Amino acid sequence: MINALGRNLPDYIEGYGKVKPFAGAFENYKEVVKSSVKLKSVKPGDDKVLSSIKEALLKCEIKDGYTISFHHHLRNGDFVLNMVVDEIAKLGLKDIKVAASSIFPCHAPLVEHIKNGVVTGIYANYMSGPVAEAVSKGILKYPAIMHTHGGRARAIESGDLHIDIAFIASPACDTYGNINGVEGKSACGSLGYAIPDAMYADRVVAITDNLVPYPACPIEISQEYVDYIVEVEAIGDPKGIVSGTTRITKDPVGLKIAKLAAQLIEESGLLKDGFSFQTGAGGTSLAVAAFVKEMMKKNNIKGSFAAGGITGYIVEMFEEGLFRSLFDVQCFDLKAVESYKNNKAHQGMSSSMYGNPHNRGAVVNNLDVMILGATEIDTDFNVNVTTGSNGVIMGGSGGHSDTAAGSKLAIVVTQLTKARLPIIVDRVTTVTTPGETIDAVVTERGIAINPKRLDLLEKLKESKLPIFTIEELKQMAEKMTGVPEKIEFEDKIVAIVEYRDGTVIDVVRQVR
Amino acid sequence: MINALGRNLPDYIEGYGKVKPFAGAFENYKEVVKSSVKLKSVKPGDDKVLSSIKEALLKCEIKDGYTISFHHHLRNGDFVLNMVVDEIAKLGLKDIKVAASSIFPCHAPLVEHIKNGVVTGIYANYMSGPVAEAVSKGILKYPAIMHTHGGRARAIESGDLHIDIAFIASPACDTYGNINGVEGKSACGSLGYAIPDAMYADRVVAITDNLVPYPACPIEISQEYVDYIVEVEAIGDPKGIVSGTTRITKDPVGLKIAKLAAQLIEESGLLKDGFSFQTGAGGTSLAVAAFVKEMMKKNNIKGSFAAGGITGYIVEMFEEGLFRSLFDVQCFDLKAVESYKNNKAHQGMSSSMYGNPHNRGAVVNNLDVMILGATEIDTDFNVNVTTGSNGVIMGGSGGHSDTAAGSKLAIVVTQLTKARLPIIVDRVTTVTTPGETIDAVVTERGIAINPKRLDLLEKLKESKLPIFTIEELKQMAEKMTGVPEKIEFEDKIVAIVEYRDGTVIDVVRQVR
Repeated sequence: MINALGRNLPDYIEGYGKVKPFAGAFENYKEVVKSSVKLKSVKPGDDKVLSSIKEALLKCEIKDGYTISFHHHLRNGDFVLNMVVDEIAKLGLKDIKVAASSIFPCHAPLVEHIKNGVVTGIYANYMSGPVAEAVSKGILKYPAIMHTHGGRARAIESGDLHIDIAFIASPACDTYGNINGVEGKSACGSLGYAIPDAMYADRVVAITDNLVPYPACPIEISQEYVDYIVEVEAIGDPKGIVSGTTRITKDPVGLKIAKLAAQLIEESGLLKDGFSFQTGAGGTSLAVAAFVKEMMKKNNIKGSFAAGGITGYIVEMFEEGLFRSLFDVQCFDLKAVESYKNNKAHQGMSSSMYGNPHNRGAVVNNLDVMILGATEIDTDFNVNVTTGSNGVIMGGSGGHSDTAAGSKLAIVVTQLTKARLPIIVDRVTTVTTPGETIDAVVTERGIAINPKRLDLLEKLKESKLPIFTIEELKQMAEKMTGVPEKIEFEDKIVAIVEYRDGTVIDVVRQVR
Repeated sequence: MINALGRNLPDYIEGYGKVKPFAGAFENYKEVVKSSVKLKSVKPGDDKVLSSIKEALLKCEIKDGYTISFHHHLRNGDFVLNMVVDEIAKLGLKDIKVAASSIFPCHAPLVEHIKNGVVTGIYANYMSGPVAEAVSKGILKYPAIMHTHGGRARAIESGDLHIDIAFIASPACDTYGNINGVEGKSACGSLGYAIPDAMYADRVVAITDNLVPYPACPIEISQEYVDYIVEVEAIGDPKGIVSGTTRITKDPVGLKIAKLAAQLIEESGLLKDGFSFQTGAGGTSLAVAAFVKEMMKKNNIKGSFAAGGITGYIVEMFEEGLFRSLFDVQCFDLKAVESYKNNKAHQGMSSSMYGNPHNRGAVVNNLDVMILGATEIDTDFNVNVTTGSNGVIMGGSGGHSDTAAGSKLAIVVTQLTKARLPIIVDRVTTVTTPGETIDAVVTERGIAINPKRLDLLEKLKESKLPIFTIEELKQMAEKMTGVPEKIEFEDKIVAIVEYRDGTVIDVVRQVR
């Protein structure tokens, strides 16, 4: 079958089930039913602290075929996923599905467990490094299922992704299971991605290297949701958990793109009191923030909120009074962790509150401007952030599709070419985010506005900004690089890209 | 049939259903399933702010027979319940069930709506004033269902109490439904009792007199859970919402009881570092806190937490460093509201986290000592706080049964006689809290220890405290008052007293 973006999909995929084709970004807002939760109630006097991960696995009565989940707040410093899967392998279990909100290079040991049949399925919103490469080569038994951040929350809450046991890496946890991410040697800040797991899994195990006396303070994940607690030596490597600082690009091309994007924001009319804003942690994105900051200060604009993964740069804007509040699903650096810990208007949000399309309104719905990246973008404005120019998985939506759909102005900032390849193409290798949710593409050579945004084109009629059609931008790029050859794939589907509403927007096939 | 406390119950009650008899306080901790939640997902651009309560009722498609819910944080100052039920009556609807976490004298207008058939059912954890009296006289079509605070959360989460529309009185609410209780002219502090309603109702309407720009801060109830927002002139009368200060008794009898209770706590061995404590807002209870405070200071004891409805007196202990944290489900006075707003270790908790027996461990499970009241207590240590000496409903469990079950030492403090009636009797008029969860009764004439607490009796063997059997205390009382005549009731069941696990511990019959 063919979905609304013309992507060819099978009706049924082994290990996944019946395919619901993507039908449009706003087609699926409806009456929804959340999954019922099963749990074992805890009696006064029951002790939750266990002596080892093995004991926790046995208490949770783990079986072949179970789905186990992890959050990625420890990012490339995470030890917990590997520790747990190693113990599962030692118990001789098979056919385990790993639902990690993201997978990083540090999770390379998972490749061996995939080869040995211990792990046969993966769910992730983002994958990079050896596991992603191995998946692209087709070694995983079933296709990996790739969600958006909000889509993962939706899948968990709807029961589409049923978690048997959630393992919560916990920078601080008390003896009754109250967890926060702001205390201890592995402090990572907000635990937003772990919250749906804790609320909907059958069993929830906190893994901590900082067992504190009852009660922990603050409490991000409550004792109501936690069955067992295991203390370990270390849950992660602080060097990999958060970077020291995130920095603005110094590259002149990046700065040029950022300046154009900021001018576009200004001309859009959105930059006024109550302005809300999100940007990633990349150098060019942060440079957009820097230009926006100058404009806000010059015009004395008081924004309402900034959201998303929060960086020190956004914290500075907040501290200077440019935003009244921050919504934080994940802290990208130490400055963000400190602010999240100390400032009550720096508020946490779960991934569901952040981007789930099937609750009563996510934070993304209130975003004015979102700054996004792309590895490819096509002339329909569809964006690929899932696969690289060689067709190998090297990322995934994360919050990309969620914020694009929610925000009033979703801007992709990108160089026109990278590594002598054009970024704008006729048809992206993989669709991560549908073009109807992307409003503009800003490159160093010019800006393209989605022709569906007649209102924005009207506003920009008198603009001195270098506005082109997306086809013109594509031609500029191709003049520099030539038209690249098409990548060839095997037939085997190695990953399924789910849109935030649970429909299939694309599949990734095995690389040759 | 007869339940575990020898109470005579029908198998089936019209308007309630099949009766599950109470079988023991700790019999029902098991694998449980929470109800699935239905909701209408909110699209980017949808507006949640409506112009009137009537518009909200129509948008929620209210029908005859619907169950609507309210929280009681505005206590005897609440305007919201009356406003909503008046609008429902104007729409000509019938057979509405009102699930209010508590009902106060200010809700007197409900009596007319009951008489007219607009309201035919009531759920409440506590009832006092004209509505309670009218229910006792049998005017409500179906028996009122009386929960504990934790039991109400359990009932909502399990689906036993399905809420069609929850109305959340909101001291502050932003335009997308983020709510807190600490800002605005109707500030009441923690909104703990409203949280299960918001999380499990089909439709959730915030009623506010303080509509603030997005986003509110702090957020106690998130936008994820709120469908609609209605702004009104006033949600309550500040004079009725919180008292200026809660005061320690000056009555010498009350002080004597409090001193004995504090000595009992000291001799129990629980008063050591990590000590946790809860007491109500009554004068004698607060006097116990005052004596405990002196002991803690004298012996340099650092407690872990105090919990429950929080008073200024408990805040003072916290501010003096006697507790590391407070768990607050409801603020009793302005000082508690201020502290809850400003101190991050003064943490909120939902009624589920507070006392629900069917989650993975409530806060009550970690209580060392609980100070409780009683209108009657029998020689099996069963306590009545539901009906008065005339058999009329004048209260209800609230957190009584939850904290008694959870705490290591549950102490009832009471005068031996009140209004020339003995408090200790052979058989309480109504059982609210089962005797197996009550450890001691402290009166001005002496202390009775529950004979099941062999460990405690052993500890007190050398004590100089005036320890008697409960029968001896009863005889002392009866010597002063004589044996009171039995109250006579009609056959009609006017209220069902549910224990926290959903079993029926007793029924209340119509007064003559």
